[in-house]
Amino acid sequence: MKISVIGTGAVGRRLSAALESAGHEVLLGTRDPAQTLTRTETSATGTPPIGAWHEDHPGIPLVPLAEAGNHAQIIVNATQGTASLGALEAAGPREGQTIMDVSNPLDASSGFPPSLFVCNTDSLAEQLQRRFPVAKVVKTLNTVNNMLMVDPARLPESHTVFVAGDDADAKALVTGLLHQLGWPAEDILDLGGLESARGMEMYLPLWLRLMGALGHADFNIKIVRKD
Amino acid sequence: MKISVIGTGAVGRRLSAALESAGHEVLLGTRDPAQTLTRTETSATGTPPIGAWHEDHPGIPLVPLAEAGNHAQIIVNATQGTASLGALEAAGPREGQTIMDVSNPLDASSGFPPSLFVCNTDSLAEQLQRRFPVAKVVKTLNTVNNMLMVDPARLPESHTVFVAGDDADAKALVTGLLHQLGWPAEDILDLGGLESARGMEMYLPLWLRLMGALGHADFNIKIVRKD
Repeated sequence: MKISVIGTGAVGRRLSAALESAGHEVLLGTRDPAQTLTRTETSATGTPPIGAWHEDHPGIPLVPLAEAGNHAQIIVNATQGTASLGALEAAGPREGQTIMDVSNPLDASSGFPPSLFVCNTDSLAEQLQRRFPVAKVVKTLNTVNNMLMVDPARLPESHTVFVAGDDADAKALVTGLLHQLGWPAEDILDLGGLESARGMEMYLPLWLRLMGALGHADFNIKIVRKD
Repeated sequence: MKISVIGTGAVGRRLSAALESAGHEVLLGTRDPAQTLTRTETSATGTPPIGAWHEDHPGIPLVPLAEAGNHAQIIVNATQGTASLGALEAAGPREGQTIMDVSNPLDASSGFPPSLFVCNTDSLAEQLQRRFPVAKVVKTLNTVNNMLMVDPARLPESHTVFVAGDDADAKALVTGLLHQLGWPAEDILDLGGLESARGMEMYLPLWLRLMGALGHADFNIKIVRKD
């Protein structure tokens, strides 16, 4: 499948590499590829500049956002939440494309832990869907660290990932990708329509405090239910 | 220990009965006990009137809020979130009392699922702590259904409950009660200061959608982490 991942941070790199390994034709989209490749600084969250990674992944071209948008059946939104609307506008989602939204609406402007810049009666995923009504937004993977996104078996027990979206076909497409990334069917929980993205995004404040209490981000939640 | 549970709904009844069974001297506080006992209607959430329950639990006196507040070393806030500040004002928390806050700031005024009336950069628990600085607020149990609060073993696997609060002694006291209610030490996760109540309360929108997807409330999350 033709997949464009937009966002060149830790999440975009991890997902694009894993999707390419799974056999997909993957582009990595960024505003200005030449400028992105000239960066030499490590990000505030510890992600190294992309140069070395790019050399290690010659099969994943780094392209401008509009080219990424044109290419894809699925656009994976792996940008920072604050940049998502602008980046997708530049990618110009087309009729029928699926936007797999793994971002979070984190507002780091007031220090750590960040708050959310949209929540409660709306969500970033719903904002994206309203802005791009021709596309089909599916929220998923925003509740786990990027290592777990593509390697759920690294934890010693099974655990749960969520999907939410208004279009059943798009949700099935994304669920298929989750299988390819290593998520067993029984660990993928469909929460229904895209409105459920509010719950998935509002879990982040708990996730951030769990990371603080555990001292690392290598964890997830498992839904334990009565038989 | 002398414990007053305030709020006579399903949560207050369940917790007061379990704490009395554990050997505590329990009062159940309500604004007007005589009026509460005359009610004959089932609540919007399906809780029957308290009369029959009260007859089945003769060891748990139903008392006015001020008497409940005077009695207790621990006040358990089991009121609806919208009523919590007012009910605790009537109970008049005294110097050194622990307020075990199991409530949620649910706003049901716009239908189902409810939104939160405080979140993101504040929480109901923090509102209570600011309003009653002489008391020590500990947030816990708000992330599970009332049956699970007092019977965690009803699920087929272990699962996690959280505590958050600014006072270590109060948190230890509450953790002791959780043990008595059946929560093993390894399933009780201390999230740190009361600010973490933001995460615990903001999990509710996900909890509500999980209830919708699963079709029942008999579930909880387990934190699965790398060894």
